[in-house]
Amino acid sequence: MTILTLLTDFGTTDYYAGAVKGVVLGLAPGATLVDLSHDLAAGDVAAGAFVWAAATASFPAGCCHLAVVDPGVGSGRRILAIAAGGSVYLAPDNGLATWVLERHPEASCYAVDRPDLYLAAPGATFHGRDRFAPLAAFLLCGGQASDLGAAIEDPVRLPLPPPSRGAERLTGHVIHIDRYGNLVTDVPAAWLAGSFSCVAVGYHRVERLVSHYAELGVGEAAALVGSLGTLELSANHEHLANRWRVTVGTAVEVLLPNEG
Amino acid sequence: MTILTLLTDFGTTDYYAGAVKGVVLGLAPGATLVDLSHDLAAGDVAAGAFVWAAATASFPAGCCHLAVVDPGVGSGRRILAIAAGGSVYLAPDNGLATWVLERHPEASCYAVDRPDLYLAAPGATFHGRDRFAPLAAFLLCGGQASDLGAAIEDPVRLPLPPPSRGAERLTGHVIHIDRYGNLVTDVPAAWLAGSFSCVAVGYHRVERLVSHYAELGVGEAAALVGSLGTLELSANHEHLANRWRVTVGTAVEVLLPNEG
Amino acid sequence: MTILTLLTDFGTTDYYAGAVKGVVLGLAPGATLVDLSHDLAAGDVAAGAFVWAAATASFPAGCCHLAVVDPGVGSGRRILAIAAGGSVYLAPDNGLATWVLERHPEASCYAVDRPDLYLAAPGATFHGRDRFAPLAAFLLCGGQASDLGAAIEDPVRLPLPPPSRGAERLTGHVIHIDRYGNLVTDVPAAWLAGSFSCVAVGYHRVERLVSHYAELGVGEAAALVGSLGTLELSANHEHLANRWRVTVGTAVEVLLPNEG
Repeated sequence: MTILTLLTDFGTTDYYAGAVKGVVLGLAPGATLVDLSHDLAAGDVAAGAFVWAAATASFPAGCCHLAVVDPGVGSGRRILAIAAGGSVYLAPDNGLATWVLERHPEASCYAVDRPDLYLAAPGATFHGRDRFAPLAAFLLCGGQASDLGAAIEDPVRLPLPPPSRGAERLTGHVIHIDRYGNLVTDVPAAWLAGSFSCVAVGYHRVERLVSHYAELGVGEAAALVGSLGTLELSANHEHLANRWRVTVGTAVEVLLPNEG
Repeated sequence: MTILTLLTDFGTTDYYAGAVKGVVLGLAPGATLVDLSHDLAAGDVAAGAFVWAAATASFPAGCCHLAVVDPGVGSGRRILAIAAGGSVYLAPDNGLATWVLERHPEASCYAVDRPDLYLAAPGATFHGRDRFAPLAAFLLCGGQASDLGAAIEDPVRLPLPPPSRGAERLTGHVIHIDRYGNLVTDVPAAWLAGSFSCVAVGYHRVERLVSHYAELGVGEAAALVGSLGTLELSANHEHLANRWRVTVGTAVEVLLPNEG
Repeated sequence: MTILTLLTDFGTTDYYAGAVKGVVLGLAPGATLVDLSHDLAAGDVAAGAFVWAAATASFPAGCCHLAVVDPGVGSGRRILAIAAGGSVYLAPDNGLATWVLERHPEASCYAVDRPDLYLAAPGATFHGRDRFAPLAAFLLCGGQASDLGAAIEDPVRLPLPPPSRGAERLTGHVIHIDRYGNLVTDVPAAWLAGSFSCVAVGYHRVERLVSHYAELGVGEAAALVGSLGTLELSANHEHLANRWRVTVGTAVEVLLPNEG
């Protein structure tokens, strides 16, 4: 295990991400550090959970994945280590692992309790440097997730109301808004069987299903199959989420073609 | 070939850049990934083209350079592989390679057609992960650009109206605005022979040529020789492009000294 | 020495950071590049000085640390190489090394004078690529800081008015505002002996000392021991610096408990 991916809300103007990297490279020389992002919205556990699962899904087995979006740092919240798919995931136990656990029903979870590994450091506000970094280094040096603490069955999960499927309509939610303004939903594209009558998001609706953005005129909105296999709503060359004032969690309704 | 540089408009809050890195590291273990930027303005092919050529110019031969600013993803637009200067450049064939091709008139271009390498994945909107990443891995593992598809002579180029040189005046354009607000032009500094009478950009003009920013008082504007060998307009400690409301493409006129 | 850390104000939309990396990888193949940040506020030497010292403190000995926030590029300002703690620090001699020097009173400083190493390049505005990158590569390939120029005793330091300690009150300053809006001060937490009567910042005051953010209600402000061992002021889930309109340099006063 020599690859460590990093996903945090530490921002890009501070010393936090650098300090984590320094601790890891000191304890696990030769590790390969891969930045996923350090620019998640501060404290946005839900966005972090989505991005973490989506990004790590493309990595090979045998990686260590560290995510730190940790508004509860220093409190009694647990640190979670997850063994899944041949890799290990480390994060505060605050829901950040929700989508990773959703993808890996077989995952083994551990409540980390290894004060012998933690760095002596002032304050209780920077577990990224003082706890997560040495834990990651331990894994990179050959340690196992199961060495880190007792197995648990109750990792914190964010509520994920599942999409639902009826004969005439599908309902789901906007689960992510990307930097282009695309609305990523949780409605599986497979449920569509290739067509729909319309997709409604609040007062807005689209009636076209396209395969890529360039089929659309500038500013024209439509649905398409997104890169995670779910329905996505997009406007060509325009930030649809801003135009429609849609936020994560908004309900999405798909009317299926009337077969009568 | 073990170095892969990455330049995209994927932003820094999404999973896209991470997913590309994961695919590459899975298919080409041990590759060295170098982030150039993932923060280009969304869909801004012209800015990407400039930054890509300027950044890659400093790399040694033998690298793979991947750029993805791809509003036409999923459409019929080609994927371009360019062998030039001992390195290979991969990008959508939408003009993103314009400045790279300008710098390498000897380049060999190929229209990529290797569906056997592409990942099976949902949707047609994320060729970064599904096509460009495995293509880059193929190159990192020893593949050649010429293995990727048929040679072509007509890669897409953005129109680049060349600067022009007269006895009394030089004319050119603002081709880039950097994060400090400096106006980078396409007027070769060599055309100046060390002096000018004035430089005009719209209604604004400067009459001084300096060698570095600190020669100027705070907010004072002047021309200087920029890091790409062309004329640059700058204000000390101030964002000149915002002050003058200048955008890329604006005409620049240099009046040469009256020798009479 | 194979690790090079990079801290700049080059931004994330330009070619500058990429060009530095390219030059280093060309001259020192196999170097491990670690991004600390390229997103410091343009020209903000004071912020850079703080972040540089705080981030590099977590790295092992034997690294090369390069920082470029360089509004005086091209002028007579010196380039500084510092040997300290088994690592070498490279920066423009403009105060950027202030906090690194504060942490390493034993440091040896050198005024770099190695034109034989510099790249021939147009303009005098990009020493990051043309001077700092080849200097870093020289160090990564085994060169010593003492090979780079004459020893000096007068590196430029930003004025750092020290905090002061009285029987009834401690006085200090806000020395950094992080991305969460926390006010980092220079008042050593050890001076508090565990309690205080109140902490005042301008017209604002807090009367609680907590150990972590989650002890606070949303928006509630308090003091705590920060990750650098100094007093920090924070509001839970809110950007305290914006709410209080506090900037770096603002005075902080701590009233100690009345023992009478």
